[in-house]
Amino acid sequence: MSVRKLVEVCFSPEEYVYYKNEFEIVVVIDVLRATSAMCTAFEYGVKSIIPVTSIEEALAYKEKGYLVGAERKGEIVEGFDFGNSPYSYMNEIFRGKEIVLSTTNGTRTIEQAKNAKQVVIGSFLNLDAISKWLLEQQKNVLCLCSGWQGKFNLEDSICGGAIADYLVSSGLFQSNEDSSIAAKYLFLEAEKSYFGFLKASSHRRRLRNLNLNEDIKYCLTPNQTTVIPVLKENKLVLQ
Amino acid sequence: MSVRKLVEVCFSPEEYVYYKNEFEIVVVIDVLRATSAMCTAFEYGVKSIIPVTSIEEALAYKEKGYLVGAERKGEIVEGFDFGNSPYSYMNEIFRGKEIVLSTTNGTRTIEQAKNAKQVVIGSFLNLDAISKWLLEQQKNVLCLCSGWQGKFNLEDSICGGAIADYLVSSGLFQSNEDSSIAAKYLFLEAEKSYFGFLKASSHRRRLRNLNLNEDIKYCLTPNQTTVIPVLKENKLVLQ
Repeated sequence: MSVRKLVEVCFSPEEYVYYKNEFEIVVVIDVLRATSAMCTAFEYGVKSIIPVTSIEEALAYKEKGYLVGAERKGEIVEGFDFGNSPYSYMNEIFRGKEIVLSTTNGTRTIEQAKNAKQVVIGSFLNLDAISKWLLEQQKNVLCLCSGWQGKFNLEDSICGGAIADYLVSSGLFQSNEDSSIAAKYLFLEAEKSYFGFLKASSHRRRLRNLNLNEDIKYCLTPNQTTVIPVLKENKLVLQ
Repeated sequence: MSVRKLVEVCFSPEEYVYYKNEFEIVVVIDVLRATSAMCTAFEYGVKSIIPVTSIEEALAYKEKGYLVGAERKGEIVEGFDFGNSPYSYMNEIFRGKEIVLSTTNGTRTIEQAKNAKQVVIGSFLNLDAISKWLLEQQKNVLCLCSGWQGKFNLEDSICGGAIADYLVSSGLFQSNEDSSIAAKYLFLEAEKSYFGFLKASSHRRRLRNLNLNEDIKYCLTPNQTTVIPVLKENKLVLQ
């Protein structure tokens, strides 16, 4: 009898309902760019991040004096000082602060997952760190991709596939779902050059049109930080 | 300016809502086994198939004297004579008949797609025939996978990827969605041996447990028929 733990990849928050019951840890992934921005913010000293789903909530926090980021469809929402570019968080003004963030897909995914026993933030930026941490936990893991407005996206799925591949390779985890098997195949195909592989991806095209190629390159470069942001009482803090 | 038509792959009926607007032809795919069974039934002379979603409807047709198949979770529903094994349709009793079929995923997918301008039935069994026919139509094509109870599945996605790859290779079609790009990668990885590639797939495991390995081998063997079943007034007939 196998005592291996499960690691599965769910391609979008909309499909989470079909997966959610048996997982103790949910890894929220939004490579371009929410979870990459979050990892970067923690790497640069942010104390905590309050993820909010609506612009109204974000505005309310701004009026209370918080530093608040808001992004929709790849652009900074009018009236806010920053969006979800990781570069905007490489700034000393954030050090030690509690900040607020609302993004098109990423914060919505966190909202969906928030009743899981444990929610953590994954991206290529903290790939090795989070994979090793998950291996140590020895709990059933679901990688929950944010997708793009309800649809599958490549970059999140590949990141989920990378985590699943790491855990399964240890011999201590297994994947049963077809989505996880597909994600691992896509990761193995992509890992030689994430940037090249994702050349044709729809979201990359979308961001390239917004002149965000530097953001994309950064977000697709693994292991630039060892932070592991976790959700505690509706705030992201360092694990 | 490109005048190429679109061919995209949607991984499950649940995601169809995010895709459905711009496609003139929807190819419904349920490789294991509904659309494979349908193709086989037409190859063996069935005149038409009425797809129904509920067991109640199926029973009502049975009481009226129709030949009715019903399958749930891989098995024939009690009280019906056949389910969705292609082998059960290799029988002279079906020749020239109008029959009724209700399956776990496939008939539900047809129901979802039925308001599209044109709905056709795809599987590995009629892969070349349907791909060539789609190429001739020169319309925007969505390959709609049935998945498994709301989740992504490998065999339908690979079949959709095969159709997309064929059409894009012609130079007359293009794919923009990440799901279509992923499906094509999975197809190119799988095409050397569908059976080997799908060894680990969840649905194959499920059917193997039901001793349906022969069914699986048959359903994964491309180009055993040239039939193109299309939906007309809620019935499937030969194109």
